[in-house]
Amino acid sequence: MFDWLSLTSKAILVLVLIYSSSFMFSARKWTPKGLHVYITGGSQGLGLEVAKLVAQKGAHVSIVARTQSKLDSALKELEAVRQRPDQVFKAFSFSLNTAEESAAALQAASDAHGGHVPDTVFTCAGAARPMYLLDMQAEDLTRGMTDGYWVQAWTAFAAAKQMVRENKKGKIILVSSTLGYMSFIGYTSYSPAKHALRGLADSLRSELMLYGIDTHIFFPPTMYTPGFEEENKTKPAITRTIESTDEGLTAQQAAAGLLGGVENGHAHITADLITSLFRASTRGSAPRSNTALDIVLDLIALIGVPLWRRSVDKQVLAHREEHQEYLRKKGFFN
Amino acid sequence: MFDWLSLTSKAILVLVLIYSSSFMFSARKWTPKGLHVYITGGSQGLGLEVAKLVAQKGAHVSIVARTQSKLDSALKELEAVRQRPDQVFKAFSFSLNTAEESAAALQAASDAHGGHVPDTVFTCAGAARPMYLLDMQAEDLTRGMTDGYWVQAWTAFAAAKQMVRENKKGKIILVSSTLGYMSFIGYTSYSPAKHALRGLADSLRSELMLYGIDTHIFFPPTMYTPGFEEENKTKPAITRTIESTDEGLTAQQAAAGLLGGVENGHAHITADLITSLFRASTRGSAPRSNTALDIVLDLIALIGVPLWRRSVDKQVLAHREEHQEYLRKKGFFN
Repeated sequence: MFDWLSLTSKAILVLVLIYSSSFMFSARKWTPKGLHVYITGGSQGLGLEVAKLVAQKGAHVSIVARTQSKLDSALKELEAVRQRPDQVFKAFSFSLNTAEESAAALQAASDAHGGHVPDTVFTCAGAARPMYLLDMQAEDLTRGMTDGYWVQAWTAFAAAKQMVRENKKGKIILVSSTLGYMSFIGYTSYSPAKHALRGLADSLRSELMLYGIDTHIFFPPTMYTPGFEEENKTKPAITRTIESTDEGLTAQQAAAGLLGGVENGHAHITADLITSLFRASTRGSAPRSNTALDIVLDLIALIGVPLWRRSVDKQVLAHREEHQEYLRKKGFFN
Repeated sequence: MFDWLSLTSKAILVLVLIYSSSFMFSARKWTPKGLHVYITGGSQGLGLEVAKLVAQKGAHVSIVARTQSKLDSALKELEAVRQRPDQVFKAFSFSLNTAEESAAALQAASDAHGGHVPDTVFTCAGAARPMYLLDMQAEDLTRGMTDGYWVQAWTAFAAAKQMVRENKKGKIILVSSTLGYMSFIGYTSYSPAKHALRGLADSLRSELMLYGIDTHIFFPPTMYTPGFEEENKTKPAITRTIESTDEGLTAQQAAAGLLGGVENGHAHITADLITSLFRASTRGSAPRSNTALDIVLDLIALIGVPLWRRSVDKQVLAHREEHQEYLRKKGFFN
């Protein structure tokens, strides 16, 4: 959605990155080797790619998803990247919509490891159903919150409690979206949930520090995954148009960016330029990843984002007549 | 919570405000005179003060809250500021936790005005129950989302649909919190809800532009209201300590700031310096209120917020031993 802005920004950023990269690689890095890594939404898309990456790095991996057939084929992909014979790869079929289901899924994975809670928890489960507000029923809004927020929050809640009980200095990694920093037409049910995850992550980061537990949150842009194909089924035309210049990432690219951020200890993780602009200019009280780079990103956002927003507002306003026609045809005014 | 930062910032801001105030008063201002203004949470605190202010400016006012006795006494306060004999002041006793209840409350107020939806909707209802995560049950998290998000989202949803049906170029004003921009220990159930409201407001602003409906969102800091006394009952000691240097606002001050922001057409409204720093540095894609001032605020935040966060992190870490003792006494590890 930011085509023109990308070009001008990239040149500046290359210079800053070269300058700042020296600091980035000086700290001692986290590695998943030998750890039990628990990944929700692990049967496809981002979750599966994260699972494969940590498996490649020597982790024991538990993946959770609803559909057994998808879990079976995901396990095969994990076997293909196995590093050592003693790595434990397990799949668990659970819905994660409620606190009880999420706790049960975590318990099942813990039971496979002597009853111990996983060392690292990635909550990659989630789904979006972009729609016009006027096409929504109340259920669409509550479903948006469940599919975008609770499906991750319940796992974080259960994992945090259990990590404290076991005095485990673990990691919890939530997955929000560019739409957790900003929003526009079509995302009334999704963006609030992704913003809520950000609030949850910032709260947990502060509180779980008491127990030596780290909290991270990832803000991926458009990812070309089965979930993206699914959300396009309900996406309004105007939303599609606004996103059409968005470059997006493959699930592999996003997973690599996410894991890199966790390795470097970043609280808020972004893997593409546009979302990085929003991260730097939508900081709240979150720790910065890289002070020099983030200041430059903030300055670019200071000029670029308002220009972008105005162009989007214009597109929305230009869509007025067409939209009234759409509502009339649907019988909204009857 | 930002005592020391306030002092240095204020001097700079006075200069910028003097410079920029000339622009602020040039645009044609919105006024509630003669409009039907609907206010949830209107029996006390911020909601009641907003009700009194718009009544003083000549609006018809409908207030909604749960408790009839509080509504009765609020109506008396409205009568005391009545400007004209034809102003209609009504009170409606409703819970707003569900889509159905919120739609019914709005319908009741509309029925009192010939079946027409109100011109302006302020969603001031809400409550916080700060707690340690480990003291929470699943119900505390869902209740946090209901009391902090749904209680406002359902009204916005019902009002937006009805405004479109009646082709009413109305206004919807949500009420978030400083904790909708950032968070810290104790607010795991509240901050996600207040972040979600921000996501909702930014989505609605973009989408409701199609219908000429304006969306605003207010981010008040600590307000000395009955709600504040209520939340202090469950607030952890460490959370109280972190907030102890926070200046806060009275409900009157907050209401005046909120109304000023709506009159000036600001998308994100803040009424205190600290939250303004967060607004300017947590911009997402929201329109700026005042470009020159917001750039200065962003620069102050660039330096000030990380210093503040580090001091809070230190306070949290220093609280570790005491907290372990607290959990042991509560029997958490049994």
